[in-house]
Amino acid sequence: MDNLGVLFLSELVGTAMLVLLGCGVVANVALAKTKGFAGGFLMVTFGWGFAVFAGVIVAYASGAHINPAVTLGLVANGATEFGNAGLGLTVPVTVLSVIAYIGAQLIGAIIGAVIVWLAYKQHFDEEPDPAPKLGTFSTGPGIRNYAWNLVTEVIGTFVLVFVVIGFGRQGDPSGLASLGALPVALLVVGIGVSLGGPTGYAINPARDLGPRIAHAFLPIRGKGASDWAYSWVPVVGPIVGGLLAGWTAIWLLPIIT
Amino acid sequence: MDNLGVLFLSELVGTAMLVLLGCGVVANVALAKTKGFAGGFLMVTFGWGFAVFAGVIVAYASGAHINPAVTLGLVANGATEFGNAGLGLTVPVTVLSVIAYIGAQLIGAIIGAVIVWLAYKQHFDEEPDPAPKLGTFSTGPGIRNYAWNLVTEVIGTFVLVFVVIGFGRQGDPSGLASLGALPVALLVVGIGVSLGGPTGYAINPARDLGPRIAHAFLPIRGKGASDWAYSWVPVVGPIVGGLLAGWTAIWLLPIIT
Amino acid sequence: MDNLGVLFLSELVGTAMLVLLGCGVVANVALAKTKGFAGGFLMVTFGWGFAVFAGVIVAYASGAHINPAVTLGLVANGATEFGNAGLGLTVPVTVLSVIAYIGAQLIGAIIGAVIVWLAYKQHFDEEPDPAPKLGTFSTGPGIRNYAWNLVTEVIGTFVLVFVVIGFGRQGDPSGLASLGALPVALLVVGIGVSLGGPTGYAINPARDLGPRIAHAFLPIRGKGASDWAYSWVPVVGPIVGGLLAGWTAIWLLPIIT
Amino acid sequence: MDNLGVLFLSELVGTAMLVLLGCGVVANVALAKTKGFAGGFLMVTFGWGFAVFAGVIVAYASGAHINPAVTLGLVANGATEFGNAGLGLTVPVTVLSVIAYIGAQLIGAIIGAVIVWLAYKQHFDEEPDPAPKLGTFSTGPGIRNYAWNLVTEVIGTFVLVFVVIGFGRQGDPSGLASLGALPVALLVVGIGVSLGGPTGYAINPARDLGPRIAHAFLPIRGKGASDWAYSWVPVVGPIVGGLLAGWTAIWLLPIIT
Repeated sequence: MDNLGVLFLSELVGTAMLVLLGCGVVANVALAKTKGFAGGFLMVTFGWGFAVFAGVIVAYASGAHINPAVTLGLVANGATEFGNAGLGLTVPVTVLSVIAYIGAQLIGAIIGAVIVWLAYKQHFDEEPDPAPKLGTFSTGPGIRNYAWNLVTEVIGTFVLVFVVIGFGRQGDPSGLASLGALPVALLVVGIGVSLGGPTGYAINPARDLGPRIAHAFLPIRGKGASDWAYSWVPVVGPIVGGLLAGWTAIWLLPIIT
Repeated sequence: MDNLGVLFLSELVGTAMLVLLGCGVVANVALAKTKGFAGGFLMVTFGWGFAVFAGVIVAYASGAHINPAVTLGLVANGATEFGNAGLGLTVPVTVLSVIAYIGAQLIGAIIGAVIVWLAYKQHFDEEPDPAPKLGTFSTGPGIRNYAWNLVTEVIGTFVLVFVVIGFGRQGDPSGLASLGALPVALLVVGIGVSLGGPTGYAINPARDLGPRIAHAFLPIRGKGASDWAYSWVPVVGPIVGGLLAGWTAIWLLPIIT
Repeated sequence: MDNLGVLFLSELVGTAMLVLLGCGVVANVALAKTKGFAGGFLMVTFGWGFAVFAGVIVAYASGAHINPAVTLGLVANGATEFGNAGLGLTVPVTVLSVIAYIGAQLIGAIIGAVIVWLAYKQHFDEEPDPAPKLGTFSTGPGIRNYAWNLVTEVIGTFVLVFVVIGFGRQGDPSGLASLGALPVALLVVGIGVSLGGPTGYAINPARDLGPRIAHAFLPIRGKGASDWAYSWVPVVGPIVGGLLAGWTAIWLLPIIT
Repeated sequence: MDNLGVLFLSELVGTAMLVLLGCGVVANVALAKTKGFAGGFLMVTFGWGFAVFAGVIVAYASGAHINPAVTLGLVANGATEFGNAGLGLTVPVTVLSVIAYIGAQLIGAIIGAVIVWLAYKQHFDEEPDPAPKLGTFSTGPGIRNYAWNLVTEVIGTFVLVFVVIGFGRQGDPSGLASLGALPVALLVVGIGVSLGGPTGYAINPARDLGPRIAHAFLPIRGKGASDWAYSWVPVVGPIVGGLLAGWTAIWLLPIIT
């Protein structure tokens, strides 16, 4: 397999892992008769944090973007290569490689969401309310206002991408890669508890759009609509936030870190 | 003592520690009049995570499988040696050594469960309902459906074994072994909060079968049946998941990590 | 830009990040219709802890005080330079550099608070009660008694600054800077859960005064008064606690650590 | 100051820090009108875990026992020196040095408890019920039965001391001491959530007896009795558990780790 194929597969598996554990914790909290029903928002945020942890571990070869906002943020930041230089696995940043990364993330997210549905199949079947079913797959706002929801997603993703680029500047934890995944996991817990209140913090277009596509095509018993009217917010917001963070990081991070 | 004897003892003590702290947190949350009664599912998952942490520390010599699904997953992955090469303590992978590992794990789990009963003796005695008593020892499904419960256990254990094998590929944390136990602990918290909703995540045949045996033979006041009808699910599911992860990791992990 | 300008900017961005994530988690827990509404005090404390984590990462160049009590505590401790010697970015400790650090922290805190308001704009607008609005920005006591509230803030900040100076004496985590931010984050979680009960643990004059200024000038719908009568407590208490810790650490830490 | 004086002071300050943050989190959860009132047992256990973290950091010179059960367990384990060899600060293990360590721990615990009372003074004054006041200082059983309560404390302390001695065998984290305190902190969280249900996990005679003495002599408004009838359980249980762990670790840990 050529390098781009390897990195494609790495992103795909990593994002599938992210969404499997991430949407899984929402299913656990939201669907009836689970062990974690009504387990609280802190549990949701730790679930997504450890989902990032596992996703970063398994997408080691591709640099573990597992998020189009990170990929585009790195492009905006001036990256010339994607992948893992330590493993000798890199590709130049081109339109093709960006498409490959984002495509892999989206496909991986769909696969992860399908597996969540399988893992919680009985609970989807017995849950009478369609709202927690969609909520397991995709985010929705507490108060619907597309402009302000967008602002929230931009801010949350800006923090994610800006600090992640900051991590990359401060020492290489490659000797202990499994602990190197910890900082970004903790950061995502932090963003979740702190900025996840209004919109449920997509902060990742693939994490939201992929599962929404899965929600639309899967034969989920008693499912409602997939809320496509909102679906652009958690795509556009994170992309804008990621690009802004990448551009800002060009001039600001070399000064402050 | 020969190497196999050493590794047997190491696995036994490690799994006893795992089950002591793991089943302990369930006792704390489930049994009446404890300090942690109704403490929530997040507390249960942190309890199991830190139980893994302590178990991995004390089973350092044997490589800390403390789970037959990990042992079998490593076999499927093509391991030729078990143990800790850094300590010069290894045995070849044979039918005998596999049986020794799994036997030690099962015996250790039984011992751990007996100690939990001793630690919470008064609370077992004063609890009128038999359901939380069995729940302290062994898992049970939120919605009973053997086929789908099996699917959930397969998925959860696949994630565990697949990512654990991934850890092993990414740097040797041997210089700081007590932090090397942290990634797998966090992973188990993540699997618990995210995939533990339907079945309570055995993801380890010894963790479920050992305590169930203890439940059956211990003179627990007012205990009910040990639910042997369900008992094969948290044994077969994790074994299948572990084997699938080991096989998948042969071809997939060298590509993506 | 000269070194002092760099460090000014670094402190400003770091404190903005701290307050954005820190006040953000309070907004999430306190304001109506958020995902994390009534999420509990543990979630608040983890939110502030991870806020410190992110703030320390992005203020790497300036040594990441992001708190006037830390800055003054280091002065009291006899520091002769501020900044990051490893990066060759230091300034001598003078009245000017102390003012620059504290000024940057205060401005950063105001900016962070404004962004929290933007991220939670709809929830501020729909929240009828003014109390959680002020609570999102600034601390207030559970039982109002200025003298005793001051004592609590002095104690909490003493612990923070004393242990942080202790960290600095025990090995240089510069090879893995993103994990080097973890100990102080965990310490702040610990102070929050343990000493945050009476006053909500400002333990940082900028964290409290900056957002209070923002609360006063922002056009927040239905906001109440900014409680200036209390505002001196979370300024004076942390300053006193930080100075006491710095002085105590001069003679005590070289003995005990 | 001679070495023994240094180590005495180090243990005293470390144990004071432990009890300040540890009893502090109980005050926050138990006393009326605090920010963390009824915050749950998970918050209590994280509070004690991070209290250990801070205590270990500040007692670096003395090896951070901060617990007579650890001191006696190390004696039983055959230790010939106490202190920090890396700093050149050691004393031989003699009756005098053991008394010095335990005396320092007890005095430190009393001091820590007094500071908790000061930090939460208003909340002690306004709390009508004496039970949470004593509960802030010292442990008490969920179901009173001295024999079984003793068993629980023995088991919990055995786990603590056995695993702590195991940490000491696995790599020297001295290059990053602030992270070296993390494993024991996580272990204490794990013991708390898992084995803390029946008795509230003293697992440390100084942590229980010191604050109980403080409770007896402090002029706490509306306090009740100090429950001296129970007070021997959280002293004898941890001592027995620590000694058993130290003896067991002599022959067992060299085999299994």
